This record gives sequence, structure tokens and C-alpha cells, in this order.
Amino acid sequence: MPTASVIIAAGGLGRRFQAAGARAAERGPFEQHPTKAFAPLAGKPVLAHTLACFAEIPSVVEFIVAVPEGALDWAEEHFDAAGVGGRRLKIVAGGRDRPDSVARALEVSDPGTELVAVHDAVRPLIRRAVAEEALRVAVERGAAVVGRPVDHTVKRVAEDRSVTETVHRHGLWVAQTPQVFRREIITNAYHKRDEVVGEVTDDAQLVEALGYEVVMVLGDAVNLKITTPEDLRICEAILAAGWPFDRRTP
Amino acid sequence: MPTASVIIAAGGLGRRFQAAGARAAERGPFEQHPTKAFAPLAGKPVLAHTLACFAEIPSVVEFIVAVPEGALDWAEEHFDAAGVGGRRLKIVAGGRDRPDSVARALEVSDPGTELVAVHDAVRPLIRRAVAEEALRVAVERGAAVVGRPVDHTVKRVAEDRSVTETVHRHGLWVAQTPQVFRREIITNAYHKRDEVVGEVTDDAQLVEALGYEVVMVLGDAVNLKITTPEDLRICEAILAAGWPFDRRTP
Repeated sequence: MPTASVIIAAGGLGRRFQAAGARAAERGPFEQHPTKAFAPLAGKPVLAHTLACFAEIPSVVEFIVAVPEGALDWAEEHFDAAGVGGRRLKIVAGGRDRPDSVARALEVSDPGTELVAVHDAVRPLIRRAVAEEALRVAVERGAAVVGRPVDHTVKRVAEDRSVTETVHRHGLWVAQTPQVFRREIITNAYHKRDEVVGEVTDDAQLVEALGYEVVMVLGDAVNLKITTPEDLRICEAILAAGWPFDRRTP
Repeated sequence: MPTASVIIAAGGLGRRFQAAGARAAERGPFEQHPTKAFAPLAGKPVLAHTLACFAEIPSVVEFIVAVPEGALDWAEEHFDAAGVGGRRLKIVAGGRDRPDSVARALEVSDPGTELVAVHDAVRPLIRRAVAEEALRVAVERGAAVVGRPVDHTVKRVAEDRSVTETVHRHGLWVAQTPQVFRREIITNAYHKRDEVVGEVTDDAQLVEALGYEVVMVLGDAVNLKITTPEDLRICEAILAAGWPFDRRTP
């Protein structure tokens, strides 16, 4: 299996999260943390759970974690190679938005690895077998994105919340992370990202824009993205119930 | 507040669920239940949780529960008016698909109620304040659907799982239930449902097809639809963690 660098995007300032945390200050210590990726989940930072999943995968040789600039010291104090199974761990200051943070992480990543995986720090319930499948598919087809088919009715809704259309959902998938790419593909995509028009909401979109094939990999519905204190509580409940349960690979 | 009939669709045969349950027979008694709505959740059937939420709402005057034909006896034995706060409870045999089941329930509902709410039996985490808001909006605007804005990247995916497009997600919502309608609107929509071409995946779609306005109401991300034993376990974990937490209305 080719070697992989794993970029963890923990750079969001998490304003929405902090605001909610501040309102619920009596409930927990959310507001003490510079980013939601550092909030405590079942006894350790969210980010530690996320790193632990990828640290179990033999082909992963390094981590690059992009954190908000003001959180560099905190992150360096709390995370080291010991927590990631002895892999190299680089902590970098994130940029003004997510693509900027990923670009900075990409720059300091080891040019010798064949694959680059990008994962949201705030998706701690990622399951090893799913991440490994994404790595495998990226080797074969160049770019792989973990996601789920949309299995509910989707509506197109106007500003006043009235429905304008029921969208044909056949073939619609929701993208999660990790998103895994052959190094030359993601590097090329990031070099040309200024040429992409419109809002870019995930890394694969840059790769698609260049005409590369991107392939979906079936993940878990519970690979949720923590954006509110409520999400954190739900994650904790799922972990307490024994996630990943007795799921067989994959 | 106008009075409401609540139709609970519990009619699915739940084959996917039963197959998964059978594979995991050692884990629980899923396979003993004729439909996933009757599976045990935190000590009582899923359906009992669902009914309990709506039974707290003063304007709800009756329930019509559509169950698979083979489950009529079981349902009549396990559910009665006492479990729904003294409201009328009618149990009817569902049809060959969900719209068929809702149509049968609609036929036996009290023509004197002003509103009809349709809810999936297998969404037991519905929160009272959300259901009440849907009832309120339906009074005002005719038709209300609980749902959530899509906050992840959406891809259009081909048969071979390659991405053909990143879909512009602005204004996209995922529909859940309850879906609430003024009685004359849903009755009219069901009378004309044979005229709607293409797959119908929710009740609102029939109403939209006739040109009526349908309005989205913001619900909770955790109002999940139980379709696998894993979903059931996650629901149980969320309930054990104290859902609906200390959420303030709405």
C-alpha cells in the first residue's frame, strides 16, 4: 500500500460553536477552547479521537494538523508523535478559510508520500475500515470521497422557506471526509484553485473542476461533523454506546 | 388552535431492517417484530415514543396508525387510548406502499379536524416544540414540512460511483416528518395522486404537484428515521444521554 500524509483541518475559528458554548457556559467548558476540535469528548480532545483512528492505519506516515494561529501553542503542548503511534506530527497555522488551511498543510507535507488524505478534525467517529477503503480507492482511481447516498426527500427552498421543487434524489450523495487523493492530483488542484469560480465547499470540488475522476466511497451515517455543543453531546452518547459497535469490516 | 388528526405511518414491512436484524439475531429481538416501528427502544416500542410526543399536544384529538396487515392484532393488543393521553386511537391496515397506507388512514380520519399531520412511526426523537411549530405554520400557510437545510457538500454520482457534479446546495433542504396540512389540501392531493408522474417520496410532493404552497419548518438533526438496528442503537444512546437535552423552545 502506498504511503499517505493525513491533513487534519482543525483551523476553523468555530464562532458558531463558541457562541453556543458561551450561552451554555454552565453546562461545560466549551468556551475555554480556541476551536471546537479541542473541546473535550469522552475525556480527551475531539482531535485526539480523530488522530487515533488514522494512527491505526499502517500506510499513514505523517499528520499535518492545521489549527487557528492563536492555538498553535496549545496544540503543540497537547499533541505529539506519541499520540499518533510514533508518526511525524506537524502542526501548522491555518489560513483565513479552510482551503487556505489545507493549502498551507499541503506545502509542509512530505513530498515523498503518494497519497494525501484530508479530514475534518471535528469528525471523530470516522471508522478505520472506511478510511482504509478511501485510501485504497484513491490508489486505484486517483480521488476518493467518503459519503452517503441521500435517502430522504430533498427540497429546493426559497428565501421565505416555501418549497419551489422536490429535487430528484437519485444519484445524490452527501460528501463527508476523509477525501483522499494521489499527491500530484491534489497538488495540481490547489495550484489552480484561484481559477475555480463560485463557492468551493470541499477539496474534491477543486479536483473535479480540473476534470479528474472523483469516486464516492460508502461511509457511516454517524460520521458526523461537530458544529454545536449538541453535536458533541450526541457524539459522546454514540461513543458511550460502544461505537463502532460490532460492525464487521467494512 | 384548530384540531388535528395525526396519521402515523408504521406500515412498512421493514425488510431491510429485518434482514439486518436476522444477521444480528444474537444482539437483540429485532426479528421477532413484524415492523421496525414495534422494535423495543429504551424499554418500549419505537411507536410508543412517537405517539407520546404528539399526545402532549393539546390540539391533537386523534391518532390513526397504519400498520402492516399481519400486525393488526399485535398493535391492537399493545396500544390503546390510555397510551395516547385519552385521544381516539384508530389502527388500520396499511396498503402496498406508504402513500397507499396514508390514503387509507386519511379515509378513516375524523372529517371534523382542521389539520392532518403525517409522521413516520420510526422517527421517535421528534420534539414537541418542533411538531407544534409545524401545526402552527400549517394553519397559517396551508402546508408545513419539518426538515433541515443541507449543510454538507452534495454530489451527483453516476452508477459507477464517479462524481458527475457538485450540486449547488444553496436552498436545499432535507425533508423529515411531521408534514402537516390543512385537511382540504391533503384530501385533495390524495384524490389526485394518480395524476402525479414519477416517484413520490413524501406527502408534500403530492401537495406541491397541485400548486399549493408548502413551507419548511426547521427541525432537529437528531430526528432520525430508524431503518437499521444500528439506527435503533444510536437512538437509544441519544435518549440515554437525556434527549431532548435542555433545549429551549423551539
